[in-house]
Amino acid sequence: MSRSFQNLNIDALFLGPKSENAVFFREMMDYAVSEHMHWRSGFHPGDSALITSVDRHEHNYRETLYRTEGILNQLSAKLKNTSIPFFSPRYLGHINSDTLMVSNLAYVMAMMYNPNNCSYEASPTTTELELECGLDLCRMFGYDTKKAWGHITSGGTVANYEGMWVARNLKTLPFAISQHPQVKHLISHKLPEQLRNMPTAEILDLISALQEHGVFEEIRDMTCRGTGVRPEILGKLLVPQSKHYSWMKAADIFGIGQDNIVSLPVNEHYQTDVEHMRSVTFDLIEKGESILAMVAVVGTTEVGAIDQIDEVVALRKECEERYGQSFYIHVDAAYAGYACSMLLDEQGEFVEYHDLANYHYAAGVMPENISWPKPETYNSFKAMKEVDSITIDPHKVGFIQYAAGAICMKDKRILDLISSKAAYVFENFDSHESTFNKSILGSSIMEGSKAGATAAALWAAHRLLPLNVNGYGKVIAAGIVTAQRLLDKLGNLPPIEVGKHRFEVHTMPSPDFHMINFTFKEVGNNSLNNHNELNKRLYELCSYSTGRAYTNDFITSSTILDYKEYGDTPWLYAENCGFSRNEWEKVHRIYVLRAAVMTYSLRNEEHFEEFWQQLQAIFVKKLNQLVDEEEKKARFVSNLYVPFIELT
Amino acid sequence: MSRSFQNLNIDALFLGPKSENAVFFREMMDYAVSEHMHWRSGFHPGDSALITSVDRHEHNYRETLYRTEGILNQLSAKLKNTSIPFFSPRYLGHINSDTLMVSNLAYVMAMMYNPNNCSYEASPTTTELELECGLDLCRMFGYDTKKAWGHITSGGTVANYEGMWVARNLKTLPFAISQHPQVKHLISHKLPEQLRNMPTAEILDLISALQEHGVFEEIRDMTCRGTGVRPEILGKLLVPQSKHYSWMKAADIFGIGQDNIVSLPVNEHYQTDVEHMRSVTFDLIEKGESILAMVAVVGTTEVGAIDQIDEVVALRKECEERYGQSFYIHVDAAYAGYACSMLLDEQGEFVEYHDLANYHYAAGVMPENISWPKPETYNSFKAMKEVDSITIDPHKVGFIQYAAGAICMKDKRILDLISSKAAYVFENFDSHESTFNKSILGSSIMEGSKAGATAAALWAAHRLLPLNVNGYGKVIAAGIVTAQRLLDKLGNLPPIEVGKHRFEVHTMPSPDFHMINFTFKEVGNNSLNNHNELNKRLYELCSYSTGRAYTNDFITSSTILDYKEYGDTPWLYAENCGFSRNEWEKVHRIYVLRAAVMTYSLRNEEHFEEFWQQLQAIFVKKLNQLVDEEEKKARFVSNLYVPFIELT
Repeated sequence: MSRSFQNLNIDALFLGPKSENAVFFREMMDYAVSEHMHWRSGFHPGDSALITSVDRHEHNYRETLYRTEGILNQLSAKLKNTSIPFFSPRYLGHINSDTLMVSNLAYVMAMMYNPNNCSYEASPTTTELELECGLDLCRMFGYDTKKAWGHITSGGTVANYEGMWVARNLKTLPFAISQHPQVKHLISHKLPEQLRNMPTAEILDLISALQEHGVFEEIRDMTCRGTGVRPEILGKLLVPQSKHYSWMKAADIFGIGQDNIVSLPVNEHYQTDVEHMRSVTFDLIEKGESILAMVAVVGTTEVGAIDQIDEVVALRKECEERYGQSFYIHVDAAYAGYACSMLLDEQGEFVEYHDLANYHYAAGVMPENISWPKPETYNSFKAMKEVDSITIDPHKVGFIQYAAGAICMKDKRILDLISSKAAYVFENFDSHESTFNKSILGSSIMEGSKAGATAAALWAAHRLLPLNVNGYGKVIAAGIVTAQRLLDKLGNLPPIEVGKHRFEVHTMPSPDFHMINFTFKEVGNNSLNNHNELNKRLYELCSYSTGRAYTNDFITSSTILDYKEYGDTPWLYAENCGFSRNEWEKVHRIYVLRAAVMTYSLRNEEHFEEFWQQLQAIFVKKLNQLVDEEEKKARFVSNLYVPFIELT
Repeated sequence: MSRSFQNLNIDALFLGPKSENAVFFREMMDYAVSEHMHWRSGFHPGDSALITSVDRHEHNYRETLYRTEGILNQLSAKLKNTSIPFFSPRYLGHINSDTLMVSNLAYVMAMMYNPNNCSYEASPTTTELELECGLDLCRMFGYDTKKAWGHITSGGTVANYEGMWVARNLKTLPFAISQHPQVKHLISHKLPEQLRNMPTAEILDLISALQEHGVFEEIRDMTCRGTGVRPEILGKLLVPQSKHYSWMKAADIFGIGQDNIVSLPVNEHYQTDVEHMRSVTFDLIEKGESILAMVAVVGTTEVGAIDQIDEVVALRKECEERYGQSFYIHVDAAYAGYACSMLLDEQGEFVEYHDLANYHYAAGVMPENISWPKPETYNSFKAMKEVDSITIDPHKVGFIQYAAGAICMKDKRILDLISSKAAYVFENFDSHESTFNKSILGSSIMEGSKAGATAAALWAAHRLLPLNVNGYGKVIAAGIVTAQRLLDKLGNLPPIEVGKHRFEVHTMPSPDFHMINFTFKEVGNNSLNNHNELNKRLYELCSYSTGRAYTNDFITSSTILDYKEYGDTPWLYAENCGFSRNEWEKVHRIYVLRAAVMTYSLRNEEHFEEFWQQLQAIFVKKLNQLVDEEEKKARFVSNLYVPFIELT
């Protein structure tokens, strides 16, 4: 290991909970601003000044500056009043935390130059940075960077859309070929049902073959891109039942139809049930239906579950061997994608699983008594190089400020199915490779104009934190360690007494990543509805919705695990909390508190202990507040009011 | 007029070509940073410091800071080396210029709080700012702000997509209703062909009726959102022949198919030919085909042409009266949308056209001898309140840094056709209106996570520059005045002599907005190909592609006007340059230099004159360079080489 990386100090990466790095941040901000100002004034120094100091003393000049200042004062007041203190260890809610100083500074630095990565002509610097970042991510997942490509999107939703887009257009290519007399021989060895579900790599080879025959563009116009969508050709989109809302939107937007989504149930760990996936897949193939794509999730937004990608890949192989049929795999790793870096050594190679705990300990990344991941999670990450495309969000576990998503594609030939050109955006360049790289961000992605500053922010983060165990791995580990400690503490917390009431904490066991779900249960309460109301009210007391988040002691988030999305899986948790099967069947949903633990500042055990003492006191305070409220309400509106705690 | 607005000083809005406002900018940047730092350190002041000054003196702490600094040094070097000096009056190319100080500062200020406007819970401050900005834009276009809504997108491309999305889903609603026994009576008075092309307002009333019947969601699942797209129901998408590439992408993405785009030719002013539009529309209706939507453009990206929206609206009315049929209208005003502010008084009312020139002069917005717009452009803007949705780009003529597009919709009921919900993103709120507003940015737009900082930047700009003649109008006018002066100078420039060569400048006449297209023609050259090569090479000499843009004297952009996109319209220009009809028919394309003139710093006539003297000298220099190159090339590779200037 090179010493410089191993020596990364996590505390020096962020502005800090008390702005501890204020001096450095300010100095660098001043540097960013000064450098740009010098760039301006140094541009054709001989040009005469168009704004003189006399102009600047005009009354309306000062007035305009004062107005600007007044608006910024107003904005600052608004932001200070109602923003959420994501930076603080007291915030354990959404997938948010402090963001990297280097990416904030890099954004500001580049923003002043205002590059637009849609057009190389408007962003010679930052287009290159974006392509570099895309390849960083491809490399982390084990893609061959000679063949793969990746780029930045405005977020994971758009990255998922882009995966959907290429998968959909790919699906219709064999049908288009079969209708073209000159080239239909290319697929004449395929049975009609095999044409419905050809392996991705074979279709990509067909693109190359069509280009050699000089008919690719003609045939591309015969795919759904030209003709419009026919849902019966596209077939079914297989998505986990816990489907992120972006897939429902995608099925709508891409003309596929939400009716063509097949929901795959989850297993007891909230992962997609691969056995069920197998039977659905075989069934579709045997009925002669197309499988548009298989979506798997690495880090669900509700419990952080990580699907078993290796098993999905194995299932695909099984289909290929058994039926000569296959399917496109897209992995939505928006949340947990960056965690892959925890498994890589400084050469970017996967550390063997049996060495990993020692490796983490030796690198100072994990303490002796905590390890991550489980073997199946490890295998899942290791198999990601086999899938066709991957969504990953730098603005989640990449610790970049919003908005920065990204998509990686295994084989960039797939872009030919979606690419377009516009005369005024693109230039003619000499070499093909150069043209490809320079025009790709304008011609081969979904969005148009985009801030080059985002690329600068991500590039700077990737340079500071390499995508391996000693870079990002170290920062991500801090959250995992804290999550595991917190889970342990919560699970062992004795009941909290508030007057005559006693509240137990229950936790969802053994998360795949650093998301913790938990609830407070009143001892003696057998009503799941009351339980849900209690936790909903607790959430409100720990969020922006009962006053300024800034004055709150602790801020978390929440979610609802219901039958519609998770089938009977949440029943396991309800049972564990002590509810009857009857209650579960009546209510079919459980409201839980949800904390993505990304904070780096509690990784030190002493700091964590101090935090935990504080947190326990906060729990007592919140529960007192809740009991008071309930008792007051019961007193005043007793006829109508159904209390959600046991009142005597 | 209120004095404070009238007193706006344009020079005080921007950092300035020589960083003239460096002191103010620096002071405000420091304010933004300091305020945020105090916000952090003031959060629970009693919490003990997790990073002490002892920690900060660790060797690896300093090392990490040094590495951060080193990366920022590298980034700065890259940016300074290859960025484009958009801020300078020497840059007249793409739709770019300096950006507002207030929006840069507001972005930085908000970015540190890292709000995500996808979820109100993660952005209580900036969600409100985004909704406010959306309504600002709706109000400018004359929409009823009680019914309308608008929001920020990552750019005009995504805004166009969103217009496409609502138009498409709307189109399939009547068909879904006709298949539902309980409510099909709602449309039983319609003839089948009328069902194909119902007026937007009538379909929106049906949404309300379905909601009253309690079957809206059920029927929504029967639209293309649920069933997938059937291109034959959707019909044709009518788009100007000069179609921006985003429409080709939209037809692909939304499953409509590019084959279903009907291209409408342009007239001699590069505006969509409404006579032709009429005959195509009538023809489609008479053949019983659906019209998915009509797209019109307010400010094409190639020549800045503004379609006659009033005539498009009149055509729609004519269709309704004649056939009882109608169509959805989307206006892509990404480029020129903000110019609407030039037509509004401080109450936001349109100034009567016959008063406008005086009004502009009295407000100090335009000099006496220059006026804008032409009457038909005025009528076009005034009719925009009738269209169904409008794309507008704050990162173009809103003078905001990238990336900020926006869409306005006339009637927000249309959102019900695309909205979705995800349990973990949205909260339950008490009042319906509040729920609507708080969850709308997560549930009813195409994108997911998005930077709240963009909303802060736009909000601050709108507060500083009201959307009327004394705010944005004044800044936009500065570019228009400069464009008109430049056009006049170029048109009257005597031929430039370089050795034995003489070059004339030709300009495209009378632009609708502030975009100028021009070419240099060698006197005596009759070859259009040579002419195109000459101008292409001139572009290269005036762009990043022949070395650092920073050391260049003048930077512009270029485009190609070809037969495929514009039919015979560019022939008028080719003829004007002196080429034969035969040449035009052989080549069918003309390469032009293209300058969107947005700079505010040449509005003063004296400054402009000085700039013009400089520019003439630059032209001479560039032409000399070009002639030299050509002569050298001819000498060395004379057998193979065809020169594009006349060599003796």
